[in-house]
Amino acid sequence: MTSTLPVQHLLERHRQQFPGLANKAYFNYGGQGPMPQAALAALQQAHLHIQQVGPFSNGSNAWIHQETQQTRQTIATELGATAETITLTDSVSTGCNIALWGIEWQPSDRILITDCEHQSIIAAVQEIQRRFGVVVDVCPLLATLNQGDPVSAIAQHLTANTRLVVLSHILWNTGQVLPLAEIVAACHAYPTQEHPVRVLVDAAQSVGVLPLDLAVLEADFYAFTGHKWWCGPAGVGGLYIRPEALETLRPTFIGWRGITTDANGQPSGWERGGKRFEVATSDYALYPALRVAIATQSEWGSIEARYQRIQSLSAYLWQQLRELPSVHCLRTTAPEAGLVSFQLVDQVSGRSHRQLAQFLEGQNLMVRTILNPDCVRACVHYLTLESEIDRLVAGVQQFCQMVG
Amino acid sequence: MTSTLPVQHLLERHRQQFPGLANKAYFNYGGQGPMPQAALAALQQAHLHIQQVGPFSNGSNAWIHQETQQTRQTIATELGATAETITLTDSVSTGCNIALWGIEWQPSDRILITDCEHQSIIAAVQEIQRRFGVVVDVCPLLATLNQGDPVSAIAQHLTANTRLVVLSHILWNTGQVLPLAEIVAACHAYPTQEHPVRVLVDAAQSVGVLPLDLAVLEADFYAFTGHKWWCGPAGVGGLYIRPEALETLRPTFIGWRGITTDANGQPSGWERGGKRFEVATSDYALYPALRVAIATQSEWGSIEARYQRIQSLSAYLWQQLRELPSVHCLRTTAPEAGLVSFQLVDQVSGRSHRQLAQFLEGQNLMVRTILNPDCVRACVHYLTLESEIDRLVAGVQQFCQMVG
Repeated sequence: MTSTLPVQHLLERHRQQFPGLANKAYFNYGGQGPMPQAALAALQQAHLHIQQVGPFSNGSNAWIHQETQQTRQTIATELGATAETITLTDSVSTGCNIALWGIEWQPSDRILITDCEHQSIIAAVQEIQRRFGVVVDVCPLLATLNQGDPVSAIAQHLTANTRLVVLSHILWNTGQVLPLAEIVAACHAYPTQEHPVRVLVDAAQSVGVLPLDLAVLEADFYAFTGHKWWCGPAGVGGLYIRPEALETLRPTFIGWRGITTDANGQPSGWERGGKRFEVATSDYALYPALRVAIATQSEWGSIEARYQRIQSLSAYLWQQLRELPSVHCLRTTAPEAGLVSFQLVDQVSGRSHRQLAQFLEGQNLMVRTILNPDCVRACVHYLTLESEIDRLVAGVQQFCQMVG
Repeated sequence: MTSTLPVQHLLERHRQQFPGLANKAYFNYGGQGPMPQAALAALQQAHLHIQQVGPFSNGSNAWIHQETQQTRQTIATELGATAETITLTDSVSTGCNIALWGIEWQPSDRILITDCEHQSIIAAVQEIQRRFGVVVDVCPLLATLNQGDPVSAIAQHLTANTRLVVLSHILWNTGQVLPLAEIVAACHAYPTQEHPVRVLVDAAQSVGVLPLDLAVLEADFYAFTGHKWWCGPAGVGGLYIRPEALETLRPTFIGWRGITTDANGQPSGWERGGKRFEVATSDYALYPALRVAIATQSEWGSIEARYQRIQSLSAYLWQQLRELPSVHCLRTTAPEAGLVSFQLVDQVSGRSHRQLAQFLEGQNLMVRTILNPDCVRACVHYLTLESEIDRLVAGVQQFCQMVG
């Protein structure tokens, strides 16, 4: 793949804003994205501003209120939602926990979770199961990576007592993009005994990658973070809650940010919208930093343009890896997003994927291992250079030759 | 009160490390403490380091692991505890929620809460009541500010079904320091039906003020934050859990930080100690910044020396306020810690406490209002200058004269 020269030139200039990209070839965007310099500066500036006007004062409280509002609005605009549907959180896991623990579970309820979810959410679901006696069903989606239909796989596992379906929009292990709108439609249409089937989406790998219109997707809970594909700071993310699902969801972890108080300062109810699930003091300086990170990406191109570039780059990486005799790509066709997962084939089994990842990190090529399925995951973003991909492929080849 | 000149000189030099103190007279330490410059620098340096070695890599993961361990250890040392008893959280409220939701409530259980708690924890307790049908008893401690015995007030409200007592070590509204060791002893000695009485302490106003030895105090749950009296960044705090209470407390909000995984990456159990209650990705840069903030305070003096200075300064403020005819101090004797709460007496009732706080903020004198009881709260730290107190008292006097 050869980019036209002007685009390449623009990208190299754009990349200079990301100090984390200067000294390495980076393929861990799905773990954490590199922050643009302007976001790092916004963080520091916000901290200094808080010291200047407060740290605790009417002035700083007004600033915090404005920052939280603006950040909910910026996020909402990116996701095709309204600010009231957004809860600011510190991580994807917290967003998932808000949804999971906010449902008033009955022992007859069932949760359907896929076999490709992150250990964070599996562990939370298992504790819900233990505490409330609900039944957990597992839907095999790994097998649908290259054939079969994830929509019917999920639909086949729904029951009259299924109350929640837990899945990722983009599977963190294989990179498969699930047809979320169709899955949600099948869940919402399913005739249940008492409660409608709600859909909780782990959006760790989809926000900042896919063009999204949550109002159209109709997922009930969509939990995401700013520090992966949006390249914001670690420690700030959010949860979208569909208005239809909000009214029956109870706040669990509770603090002053989510409640209203009366004239005597006593709790009198919940804040409107997603704010009711926010707890208490945070590192508010993260909020302007996240907005700056999102704005920096938009300067390069629209989400559609970025997604298109991600797809062409991941196809390029996938194709090159496929040509290596010692490498097996999990997908038999080009990836749909930025995650490219592959395995070392038998002849190099004397060495583990962990050793490959360590070898590559020694060459400043950053990838990660996944345990289920056992593989190496390399992520490309719109920021990735073709030359970085070439270096990565050469590094993998070198490792395989050393072993062979 | 006149400080000896060398101490005053040292303090003025020490204060120059806090940019937030340069342009105002600050009395909101109980809301948020000003960060030392070195902590702000540590924050920025940590963010740059993460970009340098990662942001996601074996190198950055090792750095994060080391930072979390060191921060738990630093906190534990300050509190007279071991690192394993510490859970890192983002706020006091989160720490309280971990304790509140981690108990497996039965409808026959009772919670005893004082009438002086923060709305955050009242609201969380009310939701526990609603979800699990437990009974909530309220113990009147406001009336013990100047007379009576808080220990017997609490002891009198214990029942055979009391499972948890919720109280603050230092009451955020009146500044009263509760005799925690005696209260805990009374709770633990109380003969209950099934479960021992556990004690959850809101330590928002005590950590960084009182010399503490949690191993001796024996409170079961002690929830605190770094951003108030420790002058750390907002967004990092912790929860101490007494070893005897840890084994029966279940994690509620759950993520990868708190769990162990097997060879296939599937959840296999909980991490040891307090770490099991930590959820997922945070702004890890806050950790070194908090440690630097704690170290900066230690450079000025030990916690005992700082507490002594806080007490002499709050006595000085209390005494001066008492002499104003339009002011009523809530306490009839000098405060025990840094919080000084006072009211405007009837003749100035045409104006509210909120107006007083706004008037003072206009003069760069930062205080806050409290609604229960209706009062103004001014906090002094070891950092406070006598001249700042004089300016505050003059400001209050000026407001009263304007009204009169």
